[in-house]
Amino acid sequence: MSSYVRALYDFTGEASTSEISITTGEVLTVTRTDVGEGWWEGKNSKGQTGLFPAAYVEVLSAVESAQIANGGASRQAAAAASNAAAAATPTAGARYDQTADEWNDGQDDWEDDWDDDNDTYSEIGPASSAQNNNNTKQGQVNYATMNLPPTPSDDTLSWTSSGTVSTNANANTATLKKSGMFAKSSDSYIMASSNPTVPDNEKVYIVQVDNTYMWQPITEPYTVRVASPKKETKFKGMKSFIAYQLTPSFNNIAVSRRYKHFDWLHERLVEKFCLIPIPPLPDKQISGRYEESFIEHRRVQLQEFINWMCRHPVLSRCEVWKHFLTCTDEKLWKQGKRIAERDPLVGVTYCAAIHPPEKQLLQSYVDGQMESCASFVHHMDVAVKSLLAIAAEQTKRNQIHAKKDFQRIGEGFSELARALEIDERRVPASDSLASSVGKTAGFFISMGQMFGEQPKYDWIPFSDQLHLYRGILSNFPDILSTHKNAVQKRRDCQRLAADQRMHNAQLAEVDRRVDIISYAVLAEMSHFRQERDHHLKETLGNLIDAQIHFYQNIISKLQAAQSQFQ
Amino acid sequence: MSSYVRALYDFTGEASTSEISITTGEVLTVTRTDVGEGWWEGKNSKGQTGLFPAAYVEVLSAVESAQIANGGASRQAAAAASNAAAAATPTAGARYDQTADEWNDGQDDWEDDWDDDNDTYSEIGPASSAQNNNNTKQGQVNYATMNLPPTPSDDTLSWTSSGTVSTNANANTATLKKSGMFAKSSDSYIMASSNPTVPDNEKVYIVQVDNTYMWQPITEPYTVRVASPKKETKFKGMKSFIAYQLTPSFNNIAVSRRYKHFDWLHERLVEKFCLIPIPPLPDKQISGRYEESFIEHRRVQLQEFINWMCRHPVLSRCEVWKHFLTCTDEKLWKQGKRIAERDPLVGVTYCAAIHPPEKQLLQSYVDGQMESCASFVHHMDVAVKSLLAIAAEQTKRNQIHAKKDFQRIGEGFSELARALEIDERRVPASDSLASSVGKTAGFFISMGQMFGEQPKYDWIPFSDQLHLYRGILSNFPDILSTHKNAVQKRRDCQRLAADQRMHNAQLAEVDRRVDIISYAVLAEMSHFRQERDHHLKETLGNLIDAQIHFYQNIISKLQAAQSQFQ
Repeated sequence: MSSYVRALYDFTGEASTSEISITTGEVLTVTRTDVGEGWWEGKNSKGQTGLFPAAYVEVLSAVESAQIANGGASRQAAAAASNAAAAATPTAGARYDQTADEWNDGQDDWEDDWDDDNDTYSEIGPASSAQNNNNTKQGQVNYATMNLPPTPSDDTLSWTSSGTVSTNANANTATLKKSGMFAKSSDSYIMASSNPTVPDNEKVYIVQVDNTYMWQPITEPYTVRVASPKKETKFKGMKSFIAYQLTPSFNNIAVSRRYKHFDWLHERLVEKFCLIPIPPLPDKQISGRYEESFIEHRRVQLQEFINWMCRHPVLSRCEVWKHFLTCTDEKLWKQGKRIAERDPLVGVTYCAAIHPPEKQLLQSYVDGQMESCASFVHHMDVAVKSLLAIAAEQTKRNQIHAKKDFQRIGEGFSELARALEIDERRVPASDSLASSVGKTAGFFISMGQMFGEQPKYDWIPFSDQLHLYRGILSNFPDILSTHKNAVQKRRDCQRLAADQRMHNAQLAEVDRRVDIISYAVLAEMSHFRQERDHHLKETLGNLIDAQIHFYQNIISKLQAAQSQFQ
Repeated sequence: MSSYVRALYDFTGEASTSEISITTGEVLTVTRTDVGEGWWEGKNSKGQTGLFPAAYVEVLSAVESAQIANGGASRQAAAAASNAAAAATPTAGARYDQTADEWNDGQDDWEDDWDDDNDTYSEIGPASSAQNNNNTKQGQVNYATMNLPPTPSDDTLSWTSSGTVSTNANANTATLKKSGMFAKSSDSYIMASSNPTVPDNEKVYIVQVDNTYMWQPITEPYTVRVASPKKETKFKGMKSFIAYQLTPSFNNIAVSRRYKHFDWLHERLVEKFCLIPIPPLPDKQISGRYEESFIEHRRVQLQEFINWMCRHPVLSRCEVWKHFLTCTDEKLWKQGKRIAERDPLVGVTYCAAIHPPEKQLLQSYVDGQMESCASFVHHMDVAVKSLLAIAAEQTKRNQIHAKKDFQRIGEGFSELARALEIDERRVPASDSLASSVGKTAGFFISMGQMFGEQPKYDWIPFSDQLHLYRGILSNFPDILSTHKNAVQKRRDCQRLAADQRMHNAQLAEVDRRVDIISYAVLAEMSHFRQERDHHLKETLGNLIDAQIHFYQNIISKLQAAQSQFQ
């Protein structure tokens, strides 16, 4: 099935380049997502194909896409097509920020880094299941990247009417996808039918601070540094890949991780924490032409992912994360992997590990908070997308237009200098204006260079830092929806109890469990607020610092030019 | 006859505006020159009409235009058409910098300032020939603006093959046009057949300084200040016009002059000094919408004209100029006008007033100097046109694009601030990030304003200052050509003398007179070199100063924004 996107903003393609102009609301068929540097390729309704900034579009849902593919056929037909699509790509449309992954057919050499066998842990140790590689290069959907559980599952995946995946499973919850409603797993937790044992190290606490609820703060904060990645090879140089060195501050022992390890970790986190937004990994975009800048992009985005993890009171102490950060032994890695993939404390069931204050929450208070949160998340999502579009635009403006402009000014002065030279050859000058004007030309040309380089220091890092929010904000609607379903379940139970069809003791347990879910969402909202304030201050501060620094450098060049005319 | 222009540079019109894209080398028919702000309207070969920057094109000669009008007919036919055009507009194509004048049909109210009766001197005195006004509004070529001499002339104007006007006159030399070769008047001076008496105050001297020849420097330098013009009215408010107050430093008495007075003066100067380039007046462009900025444009350009005049050792002391600067009495004005219009020392005949060193010039030296000068003038003309195009482009870039860009950044931040506000209403914040981000938005929006205003301080004045060169440089080819003809005449005489058909004494006189012409051109080249160095230093210095100042202001705004995040 083709993938479709809708333009969120107008974009005017540069003439005589491979860019295409798009108009707000216009729907395009995506033809390539591996262009790199934030560009995608698509075809418009007139059949024109060209590049546009990925930040300017939103990916249409499976249902919408199916409707377009069927030329606007009935909704039923669309749903059927959507089901078909679902069968082929079980995670399609699941997480916006990773949509690019599903489209990736892995035909690029670089892809080796991403989609080869999942069972190999260490690049140092023997590649135990290298033969699996053969399965991953068919140009088909790559099941290996989906991190299916090691044991086959009998779960029946089905699509809800909203186009998100739900499950009938009650067996292996590890296959649950974050994108679903978790209706069954949620019910089984709320109805107290599942009572997993929670080891002490898994228990997390929520505390009241003033009039807000917060995850118990981190007692031993740490950081993890992502070093500039290295290109490594295996199979005697036959395969090359990028490995990132991560060094946690608590032990100062570097571990080497490839993107596929991050990907595996991310899947585990998304499964486990359905009430906590997991920060996104970098977009899985491949760039041949911009290799170096692409690697740096990804490094910055991975560092952002890691920073967010380290600063989260719950995520920063979870076992799978610590395993990821510290394990250096291949055998232990595999063991830890298997444990993580069979973790029973996943989805809503994870709430069994959460210990909030005893106090019962006022439903009206909770409702107000959730409504505010929904409105805020929506508006912030729109704002972030605007800013990403602006950043892409400013990057282009500087790299292309401002650079060209200043170089053209320089060339104009250079032309003038050459003209003056002719006259200075006629009668030699003691104080050559031609030389002053020529030097000024040089200063303007180097200012052009500076404009071209500048996005590396302001808008591109800004954009990389903002990338975080696209992923985090897109998780909130599911979180709020999970919460809403739980509240609805409580109402159902209240009705049952009123009809004497449920014991009061059982209703009290349901009440408490729904409150735990509410507490968790409230705590997460507080955490997000705090982190967001910290992170945005830094992000905006960095942007502005970089610009001040830049204009100071421009002034230095201008002053050098000025000294020619004094 | 239609007027044609050829694009010197590519220009890409803004989509959804009345602009048109033009490609280097493309020929357009000019449909309007009174658009204002440096824009003209034209039609391309596809029949599309739109605006383009006047600085991006060159006006085609009458011959080229006629060829295009006749669809590339034979050269003879073209010459015939050219003759017809000449009959209709005797000065067409004469001075590049004022071409716009001829096209002006005077239908704009503003035109009153320019093309009404020429015989009225003072706005204070009675409008003696106000009825003449009626003749100037026919949408026809306006003879009144051409400053035809008060006494009818029997001269037969004819066009030379190069499309410039020459004359068979030997009576009233005041009708000679600068654009011609002055073949007859030149001959009559060189052949010593005209020997006008030169009053002492008209005599000018050329001196040798090191290895160059220069006009004897100004002994009493002065300046003249052009004050911001005032709108005045006459006929009880029925007619309004702009008057400029000129205050010379040597007497500190302000005189009020309208553009038409400048225009009259300019005609006199062009007639009188055929070996000295006269700086151009502002383009006669009319702008309804940009009235204020247009008036300021013109004031700056008039000031440039005046500065150049004041700093010229010959021009600064000539009678018509002093009359223009000092006369405050209407009767005296008219007397002075009549004297100036009947001045016998005009064209090449003016050389009778020039007293260079006695030393005979070496022809090879003179040839080398003239060749260098021609090459320099050509290259500088191209460079100036490039820089004017760049200035127009930068003006637009700042006024439109950079302004919009920074405002869009501001709006992006503002959107983010509004989103954060929603969450800060959910749980009130002691330290509001929304407010910091909102303030930052404001700073960026005002930076957008600053970008929009900036061209007023850098590129527009730069462009106004550079305007000078378009006029001055375009005079040089005629000057060099006049000189070349004189040298040829000398060769003819040498042949005659060799054939014993001319006395040696007469040949010596011819030699001396041709040397005087050479000395005058060499002195003028030295003067132009000196003035140009001084003027360009100032012009470029001002541009760079303004940009330094601007970026310093941008940094101040950024620092104010930065303080929000510290």
